[in-house]
Amino acid sequence: MLQNIRVVLVGTTHPGNIGGAARAMKNMGLSRLVLVEPRVFPSPEADARASGADDILASTQVVASLEEALVGCSLVLGTSARDRSLPWPMLDPRESGMKVVEQAALGQEVALVFGREHAGLTNEELQRCHYHVHIQSNPEFSSLNLAAAVQVLSYEVRMAWLAAAEQASVAVDAPGRDVELATMDEMEGFYAHLEQTLVAIGFLDPEKPRHLMARLRRLYARSEVERPELSILRGILTETQKAARGEPHKRKDQ
Amino acid sequence: MLQNIRVVLVGTTHPGNIGGAARAMKNMGLSRLVLVEPRVFPSPEADARASGADDILASTQVVASLEEALVGCSLVLGTSARDRSLPWPMLDPRESGMKVVEQAALGQEVALVFGREHAGLTNEELQRCHYHVHIQSNPEFSSLNLAAAVQVLSYEVRMAWLAAAEQASVAVDAPGRDVELATMDEMEGFYAHLEQTLVAIGFLDPEKPRHLMARLRRLYARSEVERPELSILRGILTETQKAARGEPHKRKDQ
Repeated sequence: MLQNIRVVLVGTTHPGNIGGAARAMKNMGLSRLVLVEPRVFPSPEADARASGADDILASTQVVASLEEALVGCSLVLGTSARDRSLPWPMLDPRESGMKVVEQAALGQEVALVFGREHAGLTNEELQRCHYHVHIQSNPEFSSLNLAAAVQVLSYEVRMAWLAAAEQASVAVDAPGRDVELATMDEMEGFYAHLEQTLVAIGFLDPEKPRHLMARLRRLYARSEVERPELSILRGILTETQKAARGEPHKRKDQ
Repeated sequence: MLQNIRVVLVGTTHPGNIGGAARAMKNMGLSRLVLVEPRVFPSPEADARASGADDILASTQVVASLEEALVGCSLVLGTSARDRSLPWPMLDPRESGMKVVEQAALGQEVALVFGREHAGLTNEELQRCHYHVHIQSNPEFSSLNLAAAVQVLSYEVRMAWLAAAEQASVAVDAPGRDVELATMDEMEGFYAHLEQTLVAIGFLDPEKPRHLMARLRRLYARSEVERPELSILRGILTETQKAARGEPHKRKDQ
């Protein structure tokens, strides 16, 4: 079940932090590490700090974009400082651990995304996340070391997992929806389709997009769209596009 | 109150870990670090890893024995692997955080003691502790980096401290979104508008509605739509209806 959880590090500068993150993950029973455009990897510094978590480094995937890193995921959590211009659903690490384990237990793929050492995640990257995770640190010295942040989140995942395992050994199964959620790549396809459609009906001006797509992303992210629901939404868009082109519609059987 | 809590590192070998521990402490609002016979201190490596927690390193006390480090303390917690020959009262990190904050709030001095990188604390040292703290790590790779262990314990202290502060302020304000959600009647107006529109574009057959509207209601209900979001959704429907009637659209300014 923990194997459904991947840790994604975006644009890491110091290879030592990659090793430290790998060690923290393995200590907490996580194994899947994905790096988006690391500055240096592999590296002896990463190996040294991994201190025995070599298997995680050996199987680490290196990719060129966050989008690629998230393929197949139906739940994405991104770490963030507070106070973004566009407020997003926020979780603390404890709530994150529970959320992640709940989804992973249903067989869904989940990602925990961490940003660059100094700059964090960009707004665009954050908008790909269902939830933002904020570690409630000292406001006067708030920025955790990257590996330390991975440690805190991985620790909370393990705590939630141990609690769930304990419950499972008493009661048989957990609550929560047992349906397939749409994956991130499917949702990206939907957002692209939605944007085209909004342009076609004249609701979205590509010259002045404002925050319209970000707001719609946030709305649908909160909803954690199920796969059959996504088919409905795509179907609506397709018919809307036809209407915008002035094509006559024939009633469909659904 | 957090100033009643000291972190004690015994026999630390790698100065980088001292710096990492100082940073983790400061991130979580702790400030008092005591070193018992560190191999090297001060050191540039410690400064580098502290990454801004220089004030903590500058005021760090270096002492020659654990006894000296614990002067004045009425509660001492020591980190330990499980399964000691001599069973001791055990706490997990969460319980430790609560215990520590409870005591510190009473004005008592409290110590969190961490052992050597490879050998941990000796039995004699552990017997000076009121409680042993065990981080429930992966049994196959159980030993956390020292700074990572300090991070986990300091994090749980902060969580307990924040929870206590919140209780003390008699729930000044609630968490969660402070935005206005759409009311139920506004949502009903939206669903009626949505249904008309889906009929207009030929996606919904009024003769055979199936569960389409119920599914869409469920999706949006989960999302807890905010009032400004609802305006966007209504705007999209209005433009879609115009498209379905074959009216040309003029770009709108939003």
